[in-house]
Amino acid sequence: MTDTIKVIVAGPRGRMGSEALRMIEKEDNLELVACIDHKHDGKKLSELDGLPAFDVTIYADINTCFESVQADVLVDLTTPEVGYLHTKTALEYGIRPVVGTTGFTNEQLEELTDLAEEKGLGTVIAPNFAVGAVLMMQFAKMAAKYFPDVEIIEKHHDQKLDAPSGTAVKTAQLIQDVRESKKQGHPNEKETIQGARGADMDGMKIHSVRLPGLVAHQEVIFGSSGQNLTIKHDSFDRASFMSGVKLAVEQVMKLDLLVYGLENLLD
Amino acid sequence: MTDTIKVIVAGPRGRMGSEALRMIEKEDNLELVACIDHKHDGKKLSELDGLPAFDVTIYADINTCFESVQADVLVDLTTPEVGYLHTKTALEYGIRPVVGTTGFTNEQLEELTDLAEEKGLGTVIAPNFAVGAVLMMQFAKMAAKYFPDVEIIEKHHDQKLDAPSGTAVKTAQLIQDVRESKKQGHPNEKETIQGARGADMDGMKIHSVRLPGLVAHQEVIFGSSGQNLTIKHDSFDRASFMSGVKLAVEQVMKLDLLVYGLENLLD
Amino acid sequence: MTDTIKVIVAGPRGRMGSEALRMIEKEDNLELVACIDHKHDGKKLSELDGLPAFDVTIYADINTCFESVQADVLVDLTTPEVGYLHTKTALEYGIRPVVGTTGFTNEQLEELTDLAEEKGLGTVIAPNFAVGAVLMMQFAKMAAKYFPDVEIIEKHHDQKLDAPSGTAVKTAQLIQDVRESKKQGHPNEKETIQGARGADMDGMKIHSVRLPGLVAHQEVIFGSSGQNLTIKHDSFDRASFMSGVKLAVEQVMKLDLLVYGLENLLD
Amino acid sequence: MTDTIKVIVAGPRGRMGSEALRMIEKEDNLELVACIDHKHDGKKLSELDGLPAFDVTIYADINTCFESVQADVLVDLTTPEVGYLHTKTALEYGIRPVVGTTGFTNEQLEELTDLAEEKGLGTVIAPNFAVGAVLMMQFAKMAAKYFPDVEIIEKHHDQKLDAPSGTAVKTAQLIQDVRESKKQGHPNEKETIQGARGADMDGMKIHSVRLPGLVAHQEVIFGSSGQNLTIKHDSFDRASFMSGVKLAVEQVMKLDLLVYGLENLLD
Repeated sequence: MTDTIKVIVAGPRGRMGSEALRMIEKEDNLELVACIDHKHDGKKLSELDGLPAFDVTIYADINTCFESVQADVLVDLTTPEVGYLHTKTALEYGIRPVVGTTGFTNEQLEELTDLAEEKGLGTVIAPNFAVGAVLMMQFAKMAAKYFPDVEIIEKHHDQKLDAPSGTAVKTAQLIQDVRESKKQGHPNEKETIQGARGADMDGMKIHSVRLPGLVAHQEVIFGSSGQNLTIKHDSFDRASFMSGVKLAVEQVMKLDLLVYGLENLLD
Repeated sequence: MTDTIKVIVAGPRGRMGSEALRMIEKEDNLELVACIDHKHDGKKLSELDGLPAFDVTIYADINTCFESVQADVLVDLTTPEVGYLHTKTALEYGIRPVVGTTGFTNEQLEELTDLAEEKGLGTVIAPNFAVGAVLMMQFAKMAAKYFPDVEIIEKHHDQKLDAPSGTAVKTAQLIQDVRESKKQGHPNEKETIQGARGADMDGMKIHSVRLPGLVAHQEVIFGSSGQNLTIKHDSFDRASFMSGVKLAVEQVMKLDLLVYGLENLLD
Repeated sequence: MTDTIKVIVAGPRGRMGSEALRMIEKEDNLELVACIDHKHDGKKLSELDGLPAFDVTIYADINTCFESVQADVLVDLTTPEVGYLHTKTALEYGIRPVVGTTGFTNEQLEELTDLAEEKGLGTVIAPNFAVGAVLMMQFAKMAAKYFPDVEIIEKHHDQKLDAPSGTAVKTAQLIQDVRESKKQGHPNEKETIQGARGADMDGMKIHSVRLPGLVAHQEVIFGSSGQNLTIKHDSFDRASFMSGVKLAVEQVMKLDLLVYGLENLLD
Repeated sequence: MTDTIKVIVAGPRGRMGSEALRMIEKEDNLELVACIDHKHDGKKLSELDGLPAFDVTIYADINTCFESVQADVLVDLTTPEVGYLHTKTALEYGIRPVVGTTGFTNEQLEELTDLAEEKGLGTVIAPNFAVGAVLMMQFAKMAAKYFPDVEIIEKHHDQKLDAPSGTAVKTAQLIQDVRESKKQGHPNEKETIQGARGADMDGMKIHSVRLPGLVAHQEVIFGSSGQNLTIKHDSFDRASFMSGVKLAVEQVMKLDLLVYGLENLLD
């Protein structure tokens, strides 16, 4: 079919990669044409346990892959080091890259931006593919213009090591771009037990809940005289990332330059 | 001070009007210069019980008021019939109207739009001044592009007569503008007790909770594989409307035409 | 009517007292027969502005009141000092006291307990009359036996000075009575911004949110493998206390000793 | 170790059974000594894929199993038909049964109750092993005595066929036992779209939300003048049932009769 987007997945055995395969399996307009994996060279994907049984070939070498198979998009869910090389190679072969990573350096991003522009090829690099989380951050940024009083409560399973979460800090930073700086709460407020009022970022407060049973949840609460506005995202499992990968694959076909961050693909 | 906006309030004894007075009392950049009220002609506002003790005159006749007092903005919180006449008169006198009403006819709105344009005077007419509620609706509309599965739960005190609430229906209509139409839930789902799945609008579901103690609350829940995005507004008291009146008064000074709906004042 | 409970309210002009009057006005089985107030001696309650227009007499002296009026229950919503004297006097006159206070000393409580027993008169002294808050604490205590991982999020308006709230600390103390002591979260968890993980009480965490618009809200979240149990109380206004006053007045008639705390009136 | 409880699991390959194995693996005081499965007779459990690698034997015949292995408790997670026979046989062999089923008839329950009493052996039969859900229902029943206005919102994934959920109906029935019957909401309330006010059970309202991403969630909201009390249970995955199985296994050792329903094991 002419409208089908032909996709290669790099990193098919990873947690993100295997979810990407399951997503492609469900979507009529996406077609898996090959996988790239440093193991299992030459095997069929269907020979591997625990993955969707696609009848496509696994390539250990990216150049061999691109020379053997005709593809539109490379979905790269490997590591920053490998992903950087994959992205460059894809662009050289005229294939549009969709890359999930937070690990590229500014120099690498600049180089890839220039290369994408030179080739006139759409490229998407995204630290977070959960559309819901990206929308939550965008909405929070928009609301903060009108409601400077804001607190963030993020909740995760109790195996998480760091608090606050990266998403909470990122949300607060986005809010900071537009919010008039202010210390919140009563000027004379007092913690009778230390930590009660949470982590402070420019007067905003972040609270981190850690309990067994939880997955990954965040709510951003804006308070104003007589009203509250709350934006909440619940991530129940890894499948939440796949709507963003699908969106990126579809949008990258319409682009002729590099876009960083899923939020820049949303209207 | 040159930057102060001089405001006249029509309907000062009403529930919205009295809140508007309290808001103006707190804001340094707004100055109350007169009130319009069919009762109490010639009295000082400070002579009335239960209202902020402003030393300004009450006028029963709007023309007398506009001729006696120099003002920038008329905040009209009366009735649709009176508000319509007030708006026209204000524009004739070069005063910018900010009107809270859902009751103008299309013909009235067109006439006022033309008049505002002819005079080159900002005019704001808004059915809902709660900035948080307006943002909730805007965010819901934006999210629905990516998440077509959505249910609305609205909660009000048990003295409310109609279900679903006007805001819930309005939210669903805004979502309908962008959402791909679909029937939600399992194709074979079955209500063992009628009404369990709520009210249906184009496949979307609306649930109306009515309990003593509640004020006015709504959440819009978007579901997608592995994730939920929720946008929630809680209105705890009438003061919630006042941030929107303030915003409208400030923005109307920068406008030279009529804007309908607070959402069109938000970036 | 024989079944009506005759009530005297002490402190009718206070915030709690005036709500108590409004509650009595609505309840068919309660009858207001007098008020005690150090001001307005001899006036009718209906002569005072802003209170329900009961045609009952105000007494400045409690002995005169008890000698002039036949009553079943004294609802005392004054101060700890005055309330203590009122309670003793009521018991001497054979009137059952219902007292809202946190301020009695242990000695005072013991003395009143003995006096109530000696007289065989029901007496209720309660630090918190919000039935919902009392149930929340009781349920939290019950759940903690099965779910030792628990965090408390309490939310109040931003004019509140202390954090955590008294109710949150009280809840944690009740949980502590039954919960096996444990440090929650990952043993190696790390706050990258201080305070993120909240206030610590015996390994439990308490988070205090302060935002304009909020009133008084608390949720107690229990986490366990694959599940969460949450108990939440929202207090929207002072009327929330009145269901507890009503309950106490009704129950005190069936008692012949002193009960401390509303929780001990609930089954 | 003398304090270890020796457990046989019937139905080890089912969804509940496999979770039970994982739970036993984690708990020091429980020891798996055999499995009962109509397939794989004579194999070791460790020979089966996807299950914890216990070195215990699988028996197809329950009598052979009980004669070959010394055990304290049979955890039966099979079908009602098989479970009924297993329970009887276990009691004959002096082994305490813990059975997860809703499917026993009243006659079967009576027979098993008599048999357990005759043998003086603890027996637990439970339709729901999620401790959190059972507590939610118990708390709801307790709160309904004080707050007769209540609505239930239950949320499930959109593959669920029936609405309302069984747990919601069960909760409403438990509330009905103690709540004074009343029609909630305004006497003249009107649905402008049918179904908005939800399913009606004796005046209580139940609302069923169905969205992708959700698992199994329920909140019971009590409303009263000025306040709300909410009891919420979130089940994120099947592991939520295992705390109840553990509790039942521990408690059944202390019992000498049959207990139906986990709620009767909770204090």
